[in-house]
Amino acid sequence: MKAMVAEPPKRNSVKLVEIPKPLPKQGQVLLKTLSVGIDGTDREINEGIYGSPPSGSRYLVLGHEALARVQEVGDQVENFSEGDVVVPTVRRPCKENCLNCRTGISDFCLTGNYFEHGIYKLHGFASEYAVSDADFLIRIPPELGNLAVLLEPLSIVEKAVTQSFKIQERMMWKPKRAFVVGAGPLGLLATMILRLKGLEVYAAATREKESLKAKIVRNVGGTYVNVRETPIKTLEEKFDIVIEATGRVEAALEALSLLGPNSVMCFLGVYREKRACEEFGKVLTNMVLGNRLMFGSVSSNKSHFEMGIKDMLEIKRRYKDALNRLITRKLHLSDFEQAFRSEREDVKTIIHFK
Amino acid sequence: MKAMVAEPPKRNSVKLVEIPKPLPKQGQVLLKTLSVGIDGTDREINEGIYGSPPSGSRYLVLGHEALARVQEVGDQVENFSEGDVVVPTVRRPCKENCLNCRTGISDFCLTGNYFEHGIYKLHGFASEYAVSDADFLIRIPPELGNLAVLLEPLSIVEKAVTQSFKIQERMMWKPKRAFVVGAGPLGLLATMILRLKGLEVYAAATREKESLKAKIVRNVGGTYVNVRETPIKTLEEKFDIVIEATGRVEAALEALSLLGPNSVMCFLGVYREKRACEEFGKVLTNMVLGNRLMFGSVSSNKSHFEMGIKDMLEIKRRYKDALNRLITRKLHLSDFEQAFRSEREDVKTIIHFK
Repeated sequence: MKAMVAEPPKRNSVKLVEIPKPLPKQGQVLLKTLSVGIDGTDREINEGIYGSPPSGSRYLVLGHEALARVQEVGDQVENFSEGDVVVPTVRRPCKENCLNCRTGISDFCLTGNYFEHGIYKLHGFASEYAVSDADFLIRIPPELGNLAVLLEPLSIVEKAVTQSFKIQERMMWKPKRAFVVGAGPLGLLATMILRLKGLEVYAAATREKESLKAKIVRNVGGTYVNVRETPIKTLEEKFDIVIEATGRVEAALEALSLLGPNSVMCFLGVYREKRACEEFGKVLTNMVLGNRLMFGSVSSNKSHFEMGIKDMLEIKRRYKDALNRLITRKLHLSDFEQAFRSEREDVKTIIHFK
Repeated sequence: MKAMVAEPPKRNSVKLVEIPKPLPKQGQVLLKTLSVGIDGTDREINEGIYGSPPSGSRYLVLGHEALARVQEVGDQVENFSEGDVVVPTVRRPCKENCLNCRTGISDFCLTGNYFEHGIYKLHGFASEYAVSDADFLIRIPPELGNLAVLLEPLSIVEKAVTQSFKIQERMMWKPKRAFVVGAGPLGLLATMILRLKGLEVYAAATREKESLKAKIVRNVGGTYVNVRETPIKTLEEKFDIVIEATGRVEAALEALSLLGPNSVMCFLGVYREKRACEEFGKVLTNMVLGNRLMFGSVSSNKSHFEMGIKDMLEIKRRYKDALNRLITRKLHLSDFEQAFRSEREDVKTIIHFK
């Protein structure tokens, strides 16, 4: 069967290869892949700066954002049967089976020895067929159709937002305004989820006011900020919740000024530039004097995928085609290389498997 | 009556003056001050870099860590009567009466227009008599005696620790090890509170292994780290909770390396040095990949003073004279100037009012 693989840490190693069709073991299912989304992590793996093949393999099958159909179930799989449309989660338990991995929330793995389909020591789903443990599959309601390929990135946002709200149960908190830095898929999905929670939401990016990203923000009732015209540091408004979804240190530093009293800021990126925070003491003092909080959020677990399904249905109901508009390129597997070249108005690129 | 006052932003302005005895208004009590503790905030006010007198006053009566006896109650005060020994909390509601101030938790004030006895726009208790709203008094059980002068700094620690634990209810969290940076009164009190919670606690400072601070840490079952011998960055252990109680940026930066997966770090200081965090991107990425969290905690409210009383009684029971050992200097009011000169083995200096 065909598979889209990379060979980190080699640069520009993404290619299509023929590999054997996998066999589902006990507790696993064989999936027929319908589509995979491509994100920044896939591009970083292709650049050779992230990712790791399974032990003993020279290559890593990509594809951690997947939509698939159950083709065959292994022994002792009871909850799924042939034909079910599913999305697999990404993280899998560490070998040590730590407190969190043991209970299915390996996004909070304590050992750091977790596995991640398509990223870290486990093949992904960007192949005609793939296997996954049945315990980590999410059943997709038919109403969602192909949109469910967005469920994995949405699950990242669901974790970030849920964690923010859970954290703030530490105090009396009635958030009114949220700011999302970045209007890529994560930023736009965060904008939608925060709008569903009834917040006034600002989303900022570098695209002009008439760009697709700006339109999607307004489409869901948010306020779009073009940071080339209105740099973040010129904004006077303060926010109860700030989500940093650019992965850029400079944007993160600027966004610190948006934090109101008792606010929470969530970071979602891998911040690679070497850049100093010149007045770190001021950042800390500002946190202290205003009971401010910052945290990082990584990966997601089944509960976040399940929240994502509910919220996708609600977004469809309220904002009609807002989710569809995120999918700006649909490529056939044979055109996979285009997915690794970014295009100006691109939001989310999907690769379809026939 | 005599009062210890300062005139921020004047430098070295602390002096004793004669001022009129105040009168309790409706809902207030007249307090006869028994003792006040002196801390870093008092010293910063004396240095002219913090604090603000009440509107219309040239001077600010100091003393936000106080122990007092009720001398007289104003109209409509029902819960206190003459002779009650009390500790007043420090923060008072903002004029706007924001959501949090309205409900007695002005340590989470949303407007920033709160008042603080002895610090910000309200006189403190370092005078023979003082007034406070009765709603913000904590009754002291006789068993605690003069030790209750430590209740205000303990309340700061109670807030920091309670917030840390509340925040972590966001996940499955079974903390085992805590690290406290700094062994001043806040650091030592934090060490005690975290020990009461059953944690293995490390506390670090610059004093030698046979210093009083080191002995107090060991006295409560903690591990003392002399950072001159064992710099924080050489430690390999990782911690579930880190409390930064030095107020120094350099210590804060070093302590970031102590954070284990899913950990929480609390900052308690006002960080005045101008120092950069050279690799801010690394700090953020580390937060993200390990679900790490940082927050600042300021002031405290009645609930934290009440926790403090319970915990003081428990510390006395378990660790005998550990709290008494924190009080290293007891000065008479006339010797107040000594309190603003730090002494090598000093932990907490108390000024007694006869």
